[in-house]
Amino acid sequence: MNSLQLNLKTFLDRTAKYFPDKEIVSRDSDGSLFRYNYAEFYSRVKKLANVLSSLGIEKGDKIASLAWNNHRHLELYLGVPCYGAALHTVNIRYGNPEIVYTINHAEDKVLFFDEDLLPIVEAISGELPNIEAYIILGKSLPKTKLSPLYCYEELLDQAEPQFQFEMLDEHTPATICFTSATTGLPKGVSYTQRSLYLYTSALLYKDVTAISENDCIMPIVPMFHVNAWGLPYAAIATGAKLVLSGKRPSVHQLLALIESENVTLAAAAVTIGIEMVNVLDEHPYRISSLRSLFLGGQAPPKAIIEKLLFKYRVPVVQGYGATETSPLISFLHCRKDQEHCSESDNIKLRERQGTLIPGIEMKIVDEFGEEILWDDQQMGEIMARGPWVANQYINDERSSSSFINGWWKSGDIATINPQGAIRIVDRNKDMIKSGGEWISSVQLENELIAHPEVAEACVVAMPDEKWIERPLAYIVLKKGGNSTLIEKELTNWLEVKFPKWWLPDRYVFTNDIPKNANGKYNKNLLRQLFNEANDKNYEFQ
Amino acid sequence: MNSLQLNLKTFLDRTAKYFPDKEIVSRDSDGSLFRYNYAEFYSRVKKLANVLSSLGIEKGDKIASLAWNNHRHLELYLGVPCYGAALHTVNIRYGNPEIVYTINHAEDKVLFFDEDLLPIVEAISGELPNIEAYIILGKSLPKTKLSPLYCYEELLDQAEPQFQFEMLDEHTPATICFTSATTGLPKGVSYTQRSLYLYTSALLYKDVTAISENDCIMPIVPMFHVNAWGLPYAAIATGAKLVLSGKRPSVHQLLALIESENVTLAAAAVTIGIEMVNVLDEHPYRISSLRSLFLGGQAPPKAIIEKLLFKYRVPVVQGYGATETSPLISFLHCRKDQEHCSESDNIKLRERQGTLIPGIEMKIVDEFGEEILWDDQQMGEIMARGPWVANQYINDERSSSSFINGWWKSGDIATINPQGAIRIVDRNKDMIKSGGEWISSVQLENELIAHPEVAEACVVAMPDEKWIERPLAYIVLKKGGNSTLIEKELTNWLEVKFPKWWLPDRYVFTNDIPKNANGKYNKNLLRQLFNEANDKNYEFQ
Repeated sequence: MNSLQLNLKTFLDRTAKYFPDKEIVSRDSDGSLFRYNYAEFYSRVKKLANVLSSLGIEKGDKIASLAWNNHRHLELYLGVPCYGAALHTVNIRYGNPEIVYTINHAEDKVLFFDEDLLPIVEAISGELPNIEAYIILGKSLPKTKLSPLYCYEELLDQAEPQFQFEMLDEHTPATICFTSATTGLPKGVSYTQRSLYLYTSALLYKDVTAISENDCIMPIVPMFHVNAWGLPYAAIATGAKLVLSGKRPSVHQLLALIESENVTLAAAAVTIGIEMVNVLDEHPYRISSLRSLFLGGQAPPKAIIEKLLFKYRVPVVQGYGATETSPLISFLHCRKDQEHCSESDNIKLRERQGTLIPGIEMKIVDEFGEEILWDDQQMGEIMARGPWVANQYINDERSSSSFINGWWKSGDIATINPQGAIRIVDRNKDMIKSGGEWISSVQLENELIAHPEVAEACVVAMPDEKWIERPLAYIVLKKGGNSTLIEKELTNWLEVKFPKWWLPDRYVFTNDIPKNANGKYNKNLLRQLFNEANDKNYEFQ
Repeated sequence: MNSLQLNLKTFLDRTAKYFPDKEIVSRDSDGSLFRYNYAEFYSRVKKLANVLSSLGIEKGDKIASLAWNNHRHLELYLGVPCYGAALHTVNIRYGNPEIVYTINHAEDKVLFFDEDLLPIVEAISGELPNIEAYIILGKSLPKTKLSPLYCYEELLDQAEPQFQFEMLDEHTPATICFTSATTGLPKGVSYTQRSLYLYTSALLYKDVTAISENDCIMPIVPMFHVNAWGLPYAAIATGAKLVLSGKRPSVHQLLALIESENVTLAAAAVTIGIEMVNVLDEHPYRISSLRSLFLGGQAPPKAIIEKLLFKYRVPVVQGYGATETSPLISFLHCRKDQEHCSESDNIKLRERQGTLIPGIEMKIVDEFGEEILWDDQQMGEIMARGPWVANQYINDERSSSSFINGWWKSGDIATINPQGAIRIVDRNKDMIKSGGEWISSVQLENELIAHPEVAEACVVAMPDEKWIERPLAYIVLKKGGNSTLIEKELTNWLEVKFPKWWLPDRYVFTNDIPKNANGKYNKNLLRQLFNEANDKNYEFQ
């Protein structure tokens, strides 16, 4: 049998040939909608390859992008890996020290960046000794001291349109993403041609995301987050229409795009999903074209899933994964015996993080390494391995504590029900251990956010002399909420759902809860601030 | 990124763990329906591995099966490859010399066979020097001189239920199938763990066969034909219910199984599809559970596609491929812009052999090797390469004429329309070249079979002094047809659809048209018989 290498190029060639007219829509930097088709896209990808060649880029080199979801970033997504280099999609939301660290650690040689991000690049360029060229993803050169600086559109205009992509060794690195670490600087993961091909394949399965040429896909998730969860590659593998929402899209702009472009599958952080529902309550965008709204990053509140399904007829879907896993290793699957389930069972299904995707091996283990029961009660840590699961970080000593005998140790605590659907209970480090028993901060948060007056809720452990740790809840109230009245009400709200010892001992009402670069609550910082404020003198993490 | 090997075992492990209760239904040798589930199946597969071990089978060894579609054959389908050996599924329909040749050429060491096929095995055992053990796929040993002979169920009863399948090098041969050759003995193709994993993956794509856990799959296509087109592996990759129709199923039995088991996807040779429609006209089996009836081997007549769709609401789907391609490299795809097409366009779509599957590269070339236009007029030969396309035959000098620079040369002539959907016009060798112009025997056959009095039609070239070749039609009439009256009628029937020079010069009315082991018309033999009968003295093929 042919051992032809698994390359993204095979998908790209087919779509350019079979679906040349299918559309890519991109919100450009001036806010206008740019439209072109896969034939034009492919032609520009080939020009980009000639640009890389003229810049002296060689196979195996690393290229950084600092960019939003737009068509130029998409050209980098394909052009750089098919050329044989690796695209490092730098996380815009990192602070400058992390951006500098990740670019230097990945050993990037060229930095492509969006026009509005010039101030960041100007601020850090002095600390990037390996960068040989800066390329601004726009039509003209701005006034700046940055050097050597090129204009993307000018380079493309001058480039030859012919380029023959070679079939690469499938183990060639294709993209690089970094993930925030609990302690220390971000950790880098390298994806190969092979791992991206196989991961993309899995997204096309009917029993996974079922991405099809007939779809219109809008990855609201940033393209600098784990390859936008693989959705751009899935679009290119099928010829699906693709909508890229540009820089800092407002929720109104996102909903308007769903309506005008007839988006069938959108994928976003849960916080965006919540905002969407809030906006929809007042502005009736038509979003019924959505066959699925894929929400990730954390579990969406039940109330949001219910409202989207019953009021707007939009089914929420969830999966589980991480930067280390490309990211998906599980996804919602409605089994044959659940096809005609009740509305409440349908919601219960959508509240979980899905079933193992074919191709991956997973085990959920207790502290002794034994697999837990499938009773949805026992809790254990998810471990996984498979052809799109990493087995190391890029040049990082921390690899040895996250990858054990070829298995990735997730740090995520889950239960699994008798049907094999998982429920993430908490990050290992965010679990609260009170008197020797575990309390899930996530489950408390989910119930708190379901309260009509609560806008945001975040629960962390606080030190306790008797119980070692006790739950502490940070709450942002909706407009008009009265914090003095509500504390007792929240206790009543929770005590019908949880054992008494699960209830938070303290509430802190605030206007803003600090979040990290991925939009998740920064629980490390919250615990630290609490401890400093309470003058505790011992380390607590 | 992890370079974990692609193994069928990953699919099997997952389904046994996540869908242990899903059912496998098998028509046993006594005609009764045997039922068990994936957990029991897996347990027997592990016992089988221990049996292989006790028989002294080593990794890399070859094992032959001579069996129908049943659960024991399915156990071999997984047990042998996951053990690390290769399963050669011998074509029951071959004559004894071909069976002997293929078993010896593959160097099979053990032969598993169904009870009713004992006479074949007895007849050929003297010519199988490499076979070290015979195993009858039944519950008891029959009276026979065959030796050493074991009983499958007795061996399994004695075997330990524990076996740890190893992760194999993905290039390990997993299965072997032979394909009939135009000249000479059959040619063997070896499939690897990797190629079967990747091919199975493609079957799960929403835009290909979209096989899902929610399906109930019945591969009517024999398990000795190109891995039953991969359907058993796709069932095991998803946890779909699987129905295996046993030895020599009648069309009534097949339709009854579709009805009783609520089959959603059945796959069969076109001849079976035609028979189904004939039976349904008189016996109203309920087959509305079928979401797709996949017909292959040749193009189904338009009248059959129409009747199935409009009368029985069963959509016919087609693909294209061969033993060399696992088999599918194209499959019906209804594009976004065809979603709301007219009934007649829907039929036109289903008359074609589909669109290239993601992962494969294909070109259709003229006699100078240039790609033909996508105008549905120009004809060319299909060439393909990809991770589930072979690049050689097993130890066979004929490889060099079928595999050119890594591309498989199909010998099949096709057109391609502007949407990229192919239409197989003919086998290269079956095209009729009349006065320097090509005539498609398949297109003539399709129109002849559509005539209400015609049961079978086969068109071949006959030598002609003026035009070199002219079409000759073999016709089997339905009961009561009058051959003396009908010849003129068939000419009238065809002349409104084809140019005058396409019409057959002669008709031969017969009770039976010879077919080869795959149920296809044996056109070589027909041409030869015609030439002998007409005392022509020159070679003609």
